[in-house]
Order: sequence, then structure tokens, then C-alpha cells
Amino acid sequence: MWSYQPPLEDMLFVIDELLDVRRDWACIPEFADLDSTLCPQILEEAGKFATQVLAPLNARGDLEGCRFDDGVVTAPGGFADAYRIYCDAGWPALACDPASGGQGLPKILNTALYEMLNSVNAGWTMYPGLAYGAYECLRAFAPAPLREAYLPKIVSGEWLSTMCLTEPQAGSDVGLIRCRAEPRADASYAISGSKLFISGGDHDMTENIVHLVLARLPDAPPGTRGISLFLVPKFLTDGGGRTSNRVHCDGIETKLGIKGSATCTMRFESAVGWLIGEPHRGLKAMFVMMNAARLNVGMQGLGHAEMAYQNALRYAGERLQMHAARKPAGQPETRRAADPIVLQAAVRRTLLTQRAFVQGERALGYWAAHLLDVAEFHPDADERRRAHDLVSLLTPIIKAFFTENGFALSSAALQVWGGYGYLHAYGIEQSLRDSRVAMIYEGTNEIQALDLLVRKVIADRGRNLRSVLQWVLDEAERCAKLPECESFAETLRRTHGEVTRVTAALIAEGLEDPETGPRAGADFLRLIALLLLAAWWARAARLSLPRAAERFYGGKIETAKFFFDFVMPEASLRLELLERRRCPLPWLPVEEELHPHR
Amino acid sequence: MWSYQPPLEDMLFVIDELLDVRRDWACIPEFADLDSTLCPQILEEAGKFATQVLAPLNARGDLEGCRFDDGVVTAPGGFADAYRIYCDAGWPALACDPASGGQGLPKILNTALYEMLNSVNAGWTMYPGLAYGAYECLRAFAPAPLREAYLPKIVSGEWLSTMCLTEPQAGSDVGLIRCRAEPRADASYAISGSKLFISGGDHDMTENIVHLVLARLPDAPPGTRGISLFLVPKFLTDGGGRTSNRVHCDGIETKLGIKGSATCTMRFESAVGWLIGEPHRGLKAMFVMMNAARLNVGMQGLGHAEMAYQNALRYAGERLQMHAARKPAGQPETRRAADPIVLQAAVRRTLLTQRAFVQGERALGYWAAHLLDVAEFHPDADERRRAHDLVSLLTPIIKAFFTENGFALSSAALQVWGGYGYLHAYGIEQSLRDSRVAMIYEGTNEIQALDLLVRKVIADRGRNLRSVLQWVLDEAERCAKLPECESFAETLRRTHGEVTRVTAALIAEGLEDPETGPRAGADFLRLIALLLLAAWWARAARLSLPRAAERFYGGKIETAKFFFDFVMPEASLRLELLERRRCPLPWLPVEEELHPHR
Repeated sequence: MWSYQPPLEDMLFVIDELLDVRRDWACIPEFADLDSTLCPQILEEAGKFATQVLAPLNARGDLEGCRFDDGVVTAPGGFADAYRIYCDAGWPALACDPASGGQGLPKILNTALYEMLNSVNAGWTMYPGLAYGAYECLRAFAPAPLREAYLPKIVSGEWLSTMCLTEPQAGSDVGLIRCRAEPRADASYAISGSKLFISGGDHDMTENIVHLVLARLPDAPPGTRGISLFLVPKFLTDGGGRTSNRVHCDGIETKLGIKGSATCTMRFESAVGWLIGEPHRGLKAMFVMMNAARLNVGMQGLGHAEMAYQNALRYAGERLQMHAARKPAGQPETRRAADPIVLQAAVRRTLLTQRAFVQGERALGYWAAHLLDVAEFHPDADERRRAHDLVSLLTPIIKAFFTENGFALSSAALQVWGGYGYLHAYGIEQSLRDSRVAMIYEGTNEIQALDLLVRKVIADRGRNLRSVLQWVLDEAERCAKLPECESFAETLRRTHGEVTRVTAALIAEGLEDPETGPRAGADFLRLIALLLLAAWWARAARLSLPRAAERFYGGKIETAKFFFDFVMPEASLRLELLERRRCPLPWLPVEEELHPHR
Repeated sequence: MWSYQPPLEDMLFVIDELLDVRRDWACIPEFADLDSTLCPQILEEAGKFATQVLAPLNARGDLEGCRFDDGVVTAPGGFADAYRIYCDAGWPALACDPASGGQGLPKILNTALYEMLNSVNAGWTMYPGLAYGAYECLRAFAPAPLREAYLPKIVSGEWLSTMCLTEPQAGSDVGLIRCRAEPRADASYAISGSKLFISGGDHDMTENIVHLVLARLPDAPPGTRGISLFLVPKFLTDGGGRTSNRVHCDGIETKLGIKGSATCTMRFESAVGWLIGEPHRGLKAMFVMMNAARLNVGMQGLGHAEMAYQNALRYAGERLQMHAARKPAGQPETRRAADPIVLQAAVRRTLLTQRAFVQGERALGYWAAHLLDVAEFHPDADERRRAHDLVSLLTPIIKAFFTENGFALSSAALQVWGGYGYLHAYGIEQSLRDSRVAMIYEGTNEIQALDLLVRKVIADRGRNLRSVLQWVLDEAERCAKLPECESFAETLRRTHGEVTRVTAALIAEGLEDPETGPRAGADFLRLIALLLLAAWWARAARLSLPRAAERFYGGKIETAKFFFDFVMPEASLRLELLERRRCPLPWLPVEEELHPHR
């Protein structure tokens, strides 16, 4: 049976040692005085909530799913109660501004919280999952009266939020959105149109829902430059009343996974809304929410990968099949009929691959969260700008790479469980189903690849990427001085050189040829992700050397070596595929292919 | 919505042109006079059965699943009727011996039939899926009275068969089987024990079920050398009666996919059974059935991959999102708001990857089926032996490689469908779920990798592999003479050389170090599979050259080039990983990892 142990040991290693966040916090007045016991305390509490409240609801949410009756959505049994406990404990407010009722703690803690929530119950976590992004979007772009009316409700968790973007004809192509917004006499707007795939579009978790809706003003130019953002509540609450706002849920989807999350078709019928940000520039505001959401989706991938690792490891320790070809030295000879499969080399390689991805991603993902704190709070404007640029580069990498791996590693866990993994009762197959959607929503992974290569690298001629690559090179310098880490340094430097060369070529071509992004984006994204993970593993090994005799630190050094031996070779494959980026990709005549008349 | 078009054009290309089966059939008296219109006619009829009868039941089987009431299993609605139509049309008898009521047609036709059945309804196809293997096993090992009593029933489809192997403690490790067989006075045996994960262990499709059960005789030595095989019918029918045989179904599993297939827990309570083959040598007989089953599971992978390709292609032709960076030359300029996504380079690469795997696998898979015919019927004993050895080498490759790709390409199709792919209504997510199990059953893919490297390569010092590799080299020779295929020849030769070198090293090490198989098996299997696919693609391109101007043949040449450009680089990755086969794979201390007390 599926189970979960919060990986607090590794989380604290990442926060305290790998990222050494206190060095930055010391410069940030808001965080300078945080007690050093605060992080472990908060993570421990978050772990308790995840394991004691949410984990027991995971299978139930999957089995029951959501109910849709006559326009009203009910979440699975126990979901609303769990959400109340979550709010009462103050979790929604963790990283929010005290001015709006927040606790003003670092975002990295919020990210660690979300990793755990996503591990134990991805369906439930979809409901609060967009709240922080909505908070950030409104804080940055909503006019003062809206901020005052809505932010405290969102920060306390009293009201939840949605992101109403997709329409049947407008998925990856936001520019095709048709939803309309007509100005009304009182400076509000009448919003009309249909939205598809709206997570948490309706539910019984909160008494009001704050929809952030993309729509077109009457004078809007076509395409993405004619889209505006509106706040549209489910209920109007002006003057203390509670009036229905002509926001209808027309149905919910039956899906492969995250069945506890209500995926709604929404219809706005001249619903009252207010403009967020400038007219026609709604995407700019929505992207604040979207970027937060993308990082959170990345954390879903990490959460699934952690679950996969833990459960594959545990089962591999219990399941006795066959004699292992070798056993750990010093282990007493037993006459048992079979050994635990964790002793099998093929199983060990699977488990170590999971471990190498999970723990490497944790470093990379928490780094991005920490950079968000630096970008917001650091007193030095250059530091803030640098952190902001870095995280904007990391966002598509984290979203796409983590979610691909989350699914692949869930599948690997299922394989370790064998026939039992395929059965519903053990929960592994739910992880596989739940993890798959993260490769699609908040911008498919193909869109992330385009975002990285075209918008984040080619557009600024690689300036931002160079600064990340310099950080990789700096780590290589440090490793090169230690004999135990010299080989890591060599791989980092060589790959750095190859990445630099191919990036220069891609930028030159990309400025001429618009097909460069779609041809090379996916390989480029995985290449950069692998190099970053390699640098984090090199750093982890280097910092662990002084305590190599301890289990935890010894394991870090072993896993780093495993990463460079068995995971990093994919970087060469990606480079090889990038070399072939201009090879022919023939057109596919769909009709003739499907209905040949030979 | 999911749909299916039998890929007859490519099937006939593989059979008639790539494999040129008639050259061998001409030497085989049983097939020498087969009418040249027979293949297309049979495939067309099989395609009609698949699309008209089975395809409409696929979603229904998934939704309804099987019912278990008080020991009795009922298949989903329509399944039993479809099976009757299947039997009435004579499909079970297609490739069976006329002496037992079979039609005596080539097995390659049976394989093509199964590819189609697996494409449209993997759950249903599980029921007849084991029949041919049971037929072969009984024909080779059952004593004459049993053959006479059972073979005609199996050939006609009147009775279906199961393979009762797995027990709760004995999955990959068959040697742990505990099921017992006590001799009875009349030369039969009393079989007792429990079996798990028995596909079609009970159902309402046929009035009797023929279980092939692995069990231990009282004097059996422990391990795999003490296992015997027994035929245990659900009902005893001696003398025309119909007596229940104390074979009980204790329940069915709730699974991720193939929900239409009943996965049963079976209990034998002194059930009457008869020995098949020699005492204690049951695995030898069971492996005849198992090998047929493994090839069929490989066909499941191919069937899923074909479905994935077709449906991704069709949707990509319909879905309009964004403007394509480039369009086919000569296409009239339109002012539509968006282009079909099939014009996007990233989508084209996905589709071409699917195509390259599907059509390459079809060549490889049908080759194995044809070799089975040669191994059985060719008048020349050397030809028979050579064919037999080849197919025994190909079996684990086809099982593991095809099923891995079937799942991966189903996931790729889901990605092309985006959010819609994640919804139940479109059927794509069912393909993902259904395809996953094939990587597990009939020997996990890890077991296949061991089988290939340890039993099929190291054990015979690479003799058999060398003969396959010579065939690759011969194809390279032919390609080298044509300028259009020269680059294919070069890659084939280079990879051949590398494979030869690494294989020699693996054999030398494997004879010393039993961890060689589990460490290197998986990479080795994919490496060999890729080389074989490359050789088939080179051959396809070479044979297509004279008619390159025609859509079909032009497409073959383009796809071959795509395969060498974008798929074949994985071979270099596998070689690189094989180079690292002796790098450390540290032990994982499970308890300390999961419950650290730092």
C-alpha cells in the first residue's frame, strides 16, 4: 500500500546547506530575524497536515470524484473539511504580505509545503494551488478598492480563485479567445462567454470563488494584443450582500486522473467583472499568476516523483524474489529462498535514477522559490533584477522537466511494483494517472520549450542564460579544487562549452528562422535542465565531503556520482539531437495517410 | 474521438515486399499454392471484424469492466457475442493444423490479425490471446488422448485457455511456486493451490476453460527444476458429461486498464489434472506457450502504437492552433486564424517518431512471425533450426521494446491531444492505461532483458546474435551500393561494429560476473532493437527507391531518413550507458532512507 514520509531531512539540507538561504535572508530585513528553528518547525507541521489530513483522502477523492448536480459541484467527501483545517492553520497566508493578513514568511517554505501537498493528494491540492498566483496577480495589477476587498479573503483562504483562460478553440493559442467584456455604466464590465478546463470553477470548499477571466473589450484588436483580464466573483458581495453573478458551471469532466479536482466548463452571462491591469494587456497581468502556477505545476512533478521513489524503495525492500547476484559486504549469509529485490542491480538503478532526479530537482525547484524571495525583498536592486531574470528562465524548465520526470518516475515505480502496481488497491496506478496531466496544463511542455528557447534565450540574445551558465562554471571551479569532485568539474565544463556553442548557433538561426524554436526547443530544455541538475549534484557532493562518513552525506556523494554516470549521458543525446535540428521533418499528408487508395 | 483504420497498405508492404514471404513459401509445400489474393482478402476481413465488431465494444468494456458474483465472472456486455462471431468466422483456427480442424495458414497472418485486435480492443483480445500458445504447447507436449480431446475444442475456439503461473509469492521468480500436484490412482493428478493474476481465469465467453497450471509433484526438488505442468479443465467432460472440477475463482482485480479482461484469483482444490510433458520439466513445456504469449504481448505494444499514431495524426490535422512557422510549398495562402497543428515542427517530430517506431516494429514483428512458419514448415532442417534460433533471440526484444514504445507512444498521442487527451470521452487515455500492463505481464521487461543478454547471448557465446548481425551487415552491403542509401549503410556498419565489440566484452564478463545481466540487459536490449529497426528501415528505403515518386514509397524513404536522423541517436546513448555498466550502483539502505533519524 501507498504511503508517504515527508522528506524533511533532504528539504532542510537543500534549504540550509545547498542554498544556504540564510546568507541572503541576512540582507533582507523581513527575514533577517527569522529564528533558525522556524524552518524545521513549519516543515514538520506541514508534513503532519499532509500525512494526517490529506493523505487519507487521496484514494477516496479518486474513487468518489466530484459530483455535478444542476450546476452545483461538490468535491469528494472530506475535501471541504480538510480545506477548513488547512485555512485554520493559516497555510494559505504563509508567504503573503502581512498588510493583507499574511504571515510574511519566505516563499521557499510555501514551495516545500506544496511539494508535500502535491505528493499526498494532487487532486485536493488543485483547489488551493492557484490561490497564491491569484494573490500575486491582484496585488500587482488590481486597483486599490479591489485589492482591499479581495486580497484578505484570498490570503485567509476564505475564498478560492480560478484562472479562466482556455476556450474550446483556444488552448495553446490564447490569441483565439472569444470571451467578451462590455463596459457598463459604473466602470465595471459585463463578461460573456464560455471557458473550458477550469480547475475549481465550482465547488463547495469556499462560499465564494474569485474567477480571473481573459476576455476581449469591444475595441480589442485580434490576437494576443487584444485580451484583457477581469476579476469576476461567483457572488457579488458589495455592501455585505451576496448576489449571484450569472457565473454558471455547465458540467465537469471525467478524466484520467486528479479526479478529486473539479475541471469545469464555465459560462459567463453578462457577469459583472472588473478590469485587472490595463485594457488589452491582460496577458501581462495573467502571466504573473501563470508563472506562479507553472512553478507549482513543477512542484506537482516533484511531489509525484518523491512519492514514486519512496514507494518503489519501500516495496523493493519488502518484496522477495530471486537471489541477488551480489549482496552488500558484511551482510550475514541467510538461507532464505529469495532476496529483497532492492538488491537486484536493475532495481537499484531504477531507484537511484528516481533519487537522482528527485533530490536534484528539489535543489533546482527550491532555488527558484528562493530567487522569488530575493527578487521581491532584496534591498539591492541589481540583486532583485538578477534574481527575477533567473527565475523567469528557470520557470519553463521546472514546469516541463519536472512534470515529464514526475510521470516517467511514477511509471518506473509502477514497474518496480510489477503486477501489484497495476492494481487500483495499492495507489501506485493513481500516481501514474494523476501525474500525467501536469505535462499538459498551464501551457503544455511543448509551449514551455518554446518559451525557454524563443522568449527566454533567443529574445535576449542569451544574456540571461549566460548568467546561469556562469553559475555552473563557478561551481565547476570550486569542484576542480577537490580531487573527489574533479570529474564532476570536468563534465560540467565540457557540457558548459557545448551548451555555449549550440546556444550561440540557435540564437543566430532563431533570429532568422521561426522554426528554430519548435524544432530545437524540447531537446534544448532537457539539455539545460540536465546541466543545472548536474551542477546542483556537484555542489551537493562537494558540500557533503567533510561529513562523508555519515549515511546522509555519504548517500549524497554516491548519488551525485550515479547522476554523472547514468543520468548525465542524456545530455550528450540531446546535444546530438540538437546537431540534427535542421534535418528534414517531412510534411504529413493526413488524409492520404489515414485513407490511402493505393 | 478515437477511431481506427486497419493499416492494410503497410501490412501488405511488409509481408509482400519487405519480407518477401513468397520466396520462402515457395519452398514450403503447405504454403506453395496459396493464392496471391489470399493475404489481402484475409487481412481485409480481419480489419472488418476489428473495426465493425470489436472497436465499438472497447470503451464499453472499459466502463463496465467485468462482474464477479459468487465465484462467477461475467465479461462486459457484448464481449461474448463478439467472441461467437469471431469463432464462427474461423479466426481461432487460422494458423492451426488442419488435423485438429485448423486452416493451416501462415502464422504471419495470425500475427497481423492480432495486431488489429490489440489495436481496437486490448481487453477483449486478452481472452483469445492465449489460445494459440496453449494450442502449440499441447500439440508439442500433451499425450495423444489429451491432444485428441482438447485440441479441436481450442482450435475451434469452443474452449478458451489460461496460463496459471503466478502465485502471490512467485511472480518474476517462478521457482517459488507452491501449488501442489498429488498423483491419483488413474494416472491423473489432484492439483491444489492458489494462482494470482490469471487472465481469463473465469468468464462467460466459453462453456469450458482449459487451465495450464504449474505445480509441484510430491518428490519435486525446490526451485525451477521441480515444477511440472498440468492441464486442468474448469469442467470434466469425460464420457460426454460435464462435472465441475473444483476450480474456483475467488475474485477479480480492479486495475488501471484492460478492464474488460478478467484478471482472476484462482483456487484449485484437489482439481483433476493431467501431466503435460515430463515430470519436473513443466517450464520447458510452459515456455512454448509463454513464447507465443510474449510475441503476442509485443503485438499489443505494436497495436497500441498504431492506434496512437493514427489518432494523433488525425487530431493534428483537425486541430487549429497558432500559425505554423512554415508551410508545405505550393499550399495556397489562406487567411484562417490558425493552422492545423500538424504543420508545427514539434508535432511533426512526434508523429514521425510514432510512425518510425510503428512501421519499423511491424517489419520486425512480422519477421518473427514469418520465421515461426519457416521454423515449423521449411523442408530444410538447417533453415528450420536457423529460423527457430533467430525467433528465440527476437522474442524478448519484441516483447520488451514494443511494449515500452507502445506505452510511450500512447502517451505521446495523449500529449498531441492536449487537455482533450486527458478526458475519458476521447478514448486516448484508455489506450495509455491499457498499454501500460504489457510492460509487466508475461515476464516483466526487466526479465526480458535478462533473457536476451544472459540466456540468448551470453549462454551461446553470441553465436545466434552474430547471425542476426550478419543479416544487418548484408543489408548494409546492399545499401552501400546505392548513393541514396549510403549514409544508412554507414550507420549500420558503424553500429554493427560497436555492438560486436560491446557484446564480446559482455560475454566475457557475463561468464565471470552474474551481475552483468541485470546491469547491462536493459540498455543492451534497446541497442539491439534499434539496430534491427535501423536495418529494416534501410531495407524499406532501398526497396522503395524505384517507386519513390509515389506517396507511399516516398513516405517510406522520408521516414527511414527520419529514423536515422532522430531515433537512431538513442543507440549511441545506450552504448554510452553500456560503457558505464561497471560504475558503482550503491546499496540502498531502505529503512534508514525512509525513516532517517538524523
